[in-house]
Amino acid sequence: MTGAASPADALQLPDWLAHRAATLPHRPALMASATTLSYSALDAAVDAVVAGLQRQGVRPADRVALLLGNGLDFAYLVHAAARFGFAIVPLNTRLTAPELAYQVEDAGARFLVHDGPNHAPADALAAAARELKLLSARTLASGAVPEPEGAGLVRDPSPPEARWPRPPIPTGGFRRLGLSSLHTIVYTSGTTGPPKGVPLSLGNHWWAAIGSALNLGVSPEDRMLVCLPLYHVGGLSALFRGVIYGSPVVLHEEFDASAVNRAIDDEGVTMVSVVALMLRRMLDERGERPYPASLRSVLVGGGPVPETLLRQALACGLPVLQTYGLTESASQAVTLSPEDALRKLGSAGKPLLPVQLRVMIDNREAEPGEVGEICLRGPSITSGYLGEPNLPDGWLPTGDLGWLDEEGYLYVSDRRDDLIISGGENVYPAEVEAVLLAHPSVEEAGVAGLPDPEWGQVPVAFVKLRSGASALAPELLTFCETRLARYKVPRQIRFVESLPRTSSGKLLRRLLRGEQ
Amino acid sequence: MTGAASPADALQLPDWLAHRAATLPHRPALMASATTLSYSALDAAVDAVVAGLQRQGVRPADRVALLLGNGLDFAYLVHAAARFGFAIVPLNTRLTAPELAYQVEDAGARFLVHDGPNHAPADALAAAARELKLLSARTLASGAVPEPEGAGLVRDPSPPEARWPRPPIPTGGFRRLGLSSLHTIVYTSGTTGPPKGVPLSLGNHWWAAIGSALNLGVSPEDRMLVCLPLYHVGGLSALFRGVIYGSPVVLHEEFDASAVNRAIDDEGVTMVSVVALMLRRMLDERGERPYPASLRSVLVGGGPVPETLLRQALACGLPVLQTYGLTESASQAVTLSPEDALRKLGSAGKPLLPVQLRVMIDNREAEPGEVGEICLRGPSITSGYLGEPNLPDGWLPTGDLGWLDEEGYLYVSDRRDDLIISGGENVYPAEVEAVLLAHPSVEEAGVAGLPDPEWGQVPVAFVKLRSGASALAPELLTFCETRLARYKVPRQIRFVESLPRTSSGKLLRRLLRGEQ
Repeated sequence: MTGAASPADALQLPDWLAHRAATLPHRPALMASATTLSYSALDAAVDAVVAGLQRQGVRPADRVALLLGNGLDFAYLVHAAARFGFAIVPLNTRLTAPELAYQVEDAGARFLVHDGPNHAPADALAAAARELKLLSARTLASGAVPEPEGAGLVRDPSPPEARWPRPPIPTGGFRRLGLSSLHTIVYTSGTTGPPKGVPLSLGNHWWAAIGSALNLGVSPEDRMLVCLPLYHVGGLSALFRGVIYGSPVVLHEEFDASAVNRAIDDEGVTMVSVVALMLRRMLDERGERPYPASLRSVLVGGGPVPETLLRQALACGLPVLQTYGLTESASQAVTLSPEDALRKLGSAGKPLLPVQLRVMIDNREAEPGEVGEICLRGPSITSGYLGEPNLPDGWLPTGDLGWLDEEGYLYVSDRRDDLIISGGENVYPAEVEAVLLAHPSVEEAGVAGLPDPEWGQVPVAFVKLRSGASALAPELLTFCETRLARYKVPRQIRFVESLPRTSSGKLLRRLLRGEQ
Repeated sequence: MTGAASPADALQLPDWLAHRAATLPHRPALMASATTLSYSALDAAVDAVVAGLQRQGVRPADRVALLLGNGLDFAYLVHAAARFGFAIVPLNTRLTAPELAYQVEDAGARFLVHDGPNHAPADALAAAARELKLLSARTLASGAVPEPEGAGLVRDPSPPEARWPRPPIPTGGFRRLGLSSLHTIVYTSGTTGPPKGVPLSLGNHWWAAIGSALNLGVSPEDRMLVCLPLYHVGGLSALFRGVIYGSPVVLHEEFDASAVNRAIDDEGVTMVSVVALMLRRMLDERGERPYPASLRSVLVGGGPVPETLLRQALACGLPVLQTYGLTESASQAVTLSPEDALRKLGSAGKPLLPVQLRVMIDNREAEPGEVGEICLRGPSITSGYLGEPNLPDGWLPTGDLGWLDEEGYLYVSDRRDDLIISGGENVYPAEVEAVLLAHPSVEEAGVAGLPDPEWGQVPVAFVKLRSGASALAPELLTFCETRLARYKVPRQIRFVESLPRTSSGKLLRRLLRGEQ
């Protein structure tokens, strides 16, 4: 497991999903494509998936990698992990086989659940990894969702007398969830070295959901749309919020601006989380038509929202909440409310209730206006990285730079050292540079994010070739494409005579950005 | 302190009030009489009261009895206790001097804070108790609330640029609250013996607030009306919910049906907690006029709501939520939603998320429909009684009898053994009987609750006089009035030849009720 749990984690709570199934059996829990599952039906489906996993040999302490697109199966496995005690390792489906193999190996996953579209890469992985057992999501979940004629599928979930059998009695016999249980391992990269596994406990997810509830409110009318990938905490966290609040989750397989706009107009969606790029596409697709008042919160994470986009969104009546969060904080940790959006332009807002925030310079707290490293602490923050010791005093140094104004609003001045955010996906220069340096013709490589009107930033590579070597940009790009997810592949290769470095030889990526 | 904390309690969170003051400085926090305090002003007032208490010698581990009516001072002390670490012992202002003296002594209170109307009984207490230091609430809070011309009083709290000085920066330097801290000791009586102190930690209050939020929802538009006494958890808990949710609390000095109706119509009150008697008075005062849709929750505790009253309330569009809770559960533990109100008539509903509920008979869980003892467990439930060992496995045997139906709805069939609930106040027969038995003419005494159209129940005494003794009912009633709070004094004394008892001599109070 992931080392010592924080005291907050030692708590046990009744199984959330079972509790909701007992108290709100007929309320819609999950809507994906044409299927609407009530809490009662979802509860039964998760039980069926747990039974399927047990038959396949999965045990509570196991780690199960998921190579799945957004869909019911992913949601079942998230809740099954909470209930049965195994940890999921959600894999970014855009990664290449070598990238996937590293994460599966590092996390110690013995099982991998895949779906149809990810069948081929899963097979490749299994061939490479010893002792990795492949499980088909469809097979696991077969029987989990009753046929339309059956009892569990609630196409019209409103009638109090639904066809699903009566729920179990909520007595002391409820299964209990230990908040210290490891639930998720998500990989994230640092400034150097390979990606690191971020372990998130059930308690981390619980407290993130509670912090968000106390900031944004919770209403029985809420309906949350997930159009971010579930393999990112931004998408995953909505599944937890749904079951903890008792709100229905509308799950889209992928982001489609017109589908999102339709869900807001016609399906009663009240809350959605997006990145700036998605927000722009939603507005472009929509034109002048205002959004309905029922949409009460549009959380925008994954980097700052450009001012023109923000003004455009506010003009359409969109309640935009800019947020700052990381995998390590199990989603949003700091949020700016819509009423502050223009007054505090560029700010990520204030910390959610369970989160403590400080900005540190050389082991002291920064003064207002002084830039330093953003540090977070609280029960929603990970206890440390996989295989590393726990965080001293629980404070997570995020690697991101920022400052607080006189009123305590956070401004993020730079995501991690030179982190590139392209369309909401994180690209770590060190990871791309390492691939370039593996090419026999490359002597030095530096990668930086350059501004892009569509994607916010795109990665661009600066390469110094070995003396006498010859390589063309297309060749290097092909080299990258076989080793890196597409969004990490540089948009351009620029050949240079030398790279800017400090006297000690450290690459100055900032200067790369200035050099263009 | 109160013995071992549960694991849930070991957690620390940022000081809630300081956090709200930093994130929502200008939002109204507390409205009482003509005064509206913003979170920033309330935060400063609580700091001033903490400083005042320190000057008077109060230390973090102290227990401070409160003999106060509802008002700002009471609220300051509740938040000051959370911040500074002392425990409050809220005293029912309707108790007689001997009743008060017992609680002050048993709780080990070294200080007693009183207000003007409670000056005389406080003096009497201080004369009786050694080492009890009296503090005037007004003196403590002097300077806490700035004058109307000052900076902190927000009469119109809406403008973002209010006059209160800028709040402190919410850095890592926030004070932190330990959820294991003892915060409140409230006295409650059992079937036998003297009243017992129920210790409630900050964690108990926190989890009760979270459980309620996840059941009823939280909205930035919410405004909670407190018209129950703050010395009961039903009133007290709203102060915690207010600061934890960031919702304004409207505090009434006492229950006045027309003032409550006015606050709902004109002051934007969205939530209120009452007992059945209050609900009846609200409806009587109002006549035919429907309630506005902004009122979204009327929690009714303190015993079942009579069917005619419930139908009348629902006909007026009142969203009535029947609840079951005790001092030991830091307010509601089980709640029935309005949509189930008629379908599950007489039920108290289902447990809130953090609460586990079971009905026990002879150490086994009862079957659906079988009556047994209601037991509760969870982080909102007290860890035990003052001076008694902690609860085995954390399960609280409530002493109340009830049963679960097939769908898991709780029906409370009898509050503790023969508990009388009169206008929402608990009257314990054993306590009244003990007073009667202290009279020289009384040989045996039994007290039971008889139905009353106004109060729900009223206590009636059945007395067997000593052979040859003569005492008239008025004399016995006067004897009771000097020793018992008015609501506990029997409405009638009935003289009988014998009292119904078991073969072992145990009084059968149920038969007393049947005998009328």
